[in-house]
Amino acid sequence: MKRYAVIVAGGKGVRMGNDIPKQFLLLKGKPILMQSLEAFHSFDSAIECVIVLPKAQIDYWKQLCCQYNCKIPHKVVEGGSERFLSVRNGLAAITNDGVVAVHDGVRPLLTEKMLREGFEMAEKFGSAVPYVDSVDSLRVIDGEQTKTLDRSKIKRIQTPQIFNSRKLCSIMNVDYQPQFTDEATVWELAGEKLHFYNGDAKNIKITTPDDLRIAEIW
Amino acid sequence: MKRYAVIVAGGKGVRMGNDIPKQFLLLKGKPILMQSLEAFHSFDSAIECVIVLPKAQIDYWKQLCCQYNCKIPHKVVEGGSERFLSVRNGLAAITNDGVVAVHDGVRPLLTEKMLREGFEMAEKFGSAVPYVDSVDSLRVIDGEQTKTLDRSKIKRIQTPQIFNSRKLCSIMNVDYQPQFTDEATVWELAGEKLHFYNGDAKNIKITTPDDLRIAEIW
Repeated sequence: MKRYAVIVAGGKGVRMGNDIPKQFLLLKGKPILMQSLEAFHSFDSAIECVIVLPKAQIDYWKQLCCQYNCKIPHKVVEGGSERFLSVRNGLAAITNDGVVAVHDGVRPLLTEKMLREGFEMAEKFGSAVPYVDSVDSLRVIDGEQTKTLDRSKIKRIQTPQIFNSRKLCSIMNVDYQPQFTDEATVWELAGEKLHFYNGDAKNIKITTPDDLRIAEIW
Repeated sequence: MKRYAVIVAGGKGVRMGNDIPKQFLLLKGKPILMQSLEAFHSFDSAIECVIVLPKAQIDYWKQLCCQYNCKIPHKVVEGGSERFLSVRNGLAAITNDGVVAVHDGVRPLLTEKMLREGFEMAEKFGSAVPYVDSVDSLRVIDGEQTKTLDRSKIKRIQTPQIFNSRKLCSIMNVDYQPQFTDEATVWELAGEKLHFYNGDAKNIKITTPDDLRIAEIW
């Protein structure tokens, strides 16, 4: 089955306390987004990759590809104002049926094991969403209301979230709604079944300088 | 108001893939539990500290205190089969009214700022529980059931959880129930109000070798 990856990087870098958007910061000497792209390509060089970036960053990304001699073929697509819209733009660049992995560009530490399990699951069942356990106790704190939660049943959701591409494109061909926080949610709200695979605690989303320091040690 | 700390360390070290219980592993050259104790003592040397340990580890702890020349006065109390019972044993060593901070021995990275905010809040309002935001998307996965959650309302709960000591002792003078996962939950189930303060993302619970590597970088 044809495999695609839509790698979304919309970060303006605000939370990093830095002018460089976080997807371009260097992790072990190479831009984070490039490492995410490389993870897909080294796992399976037949995966067609699409990178989604804010319009203003596309030229800079192309410069980086030259500078770091990145030879991985990929399309570059302009993002939208919301993650949902960026992913939809990315999906529009897919030309055939197959499965598509939607991935946060700032999660460069995804593993080969995850990709193997995720793609195989999505090819078999139509969806594959990675999760990891919660280590801390969890609690709802909503104004004056608070309630403890059973952390054994609450999982932290990561990416790549992998889906049948034709079905995902069709499902996402709707107006944006604020509850569309990730593709799994869109898929579920459309009445489709979600299947889950094991993520990896190291597959963190790099959104703060501390995250970058943690990512450096792996 | 008199301040106490009950530092609980029940770990058998199973999850660390190591024969040494995790509370005794070295972080930057010193046992993790000793660093937790030191954090309270350096913040306020008048805090009376109680360390709760499995019976079989108490002699080893005393040896470590000699070996690392730890001069911080503290009581050592034998733990129970559940965290709740260990904490209750620790509380029994408290002699006066005041506020008591219950802390995971394997969270050595608590900050002075947290201790200041937490003790002041508990002294004023009777309870103070630290939380941090969730970074990942969260989802209930319970067998075939799954549901996305609004992560902005779900907080990760840490320690020290600080309470009016007389009230906590009285509330915890009940039979153990499996839903008593932390002191905040016991407090809440007794109908008491919880107050919350800002924890710190670095204040992690060290339960895996990877956690230890992360803790080393701060």
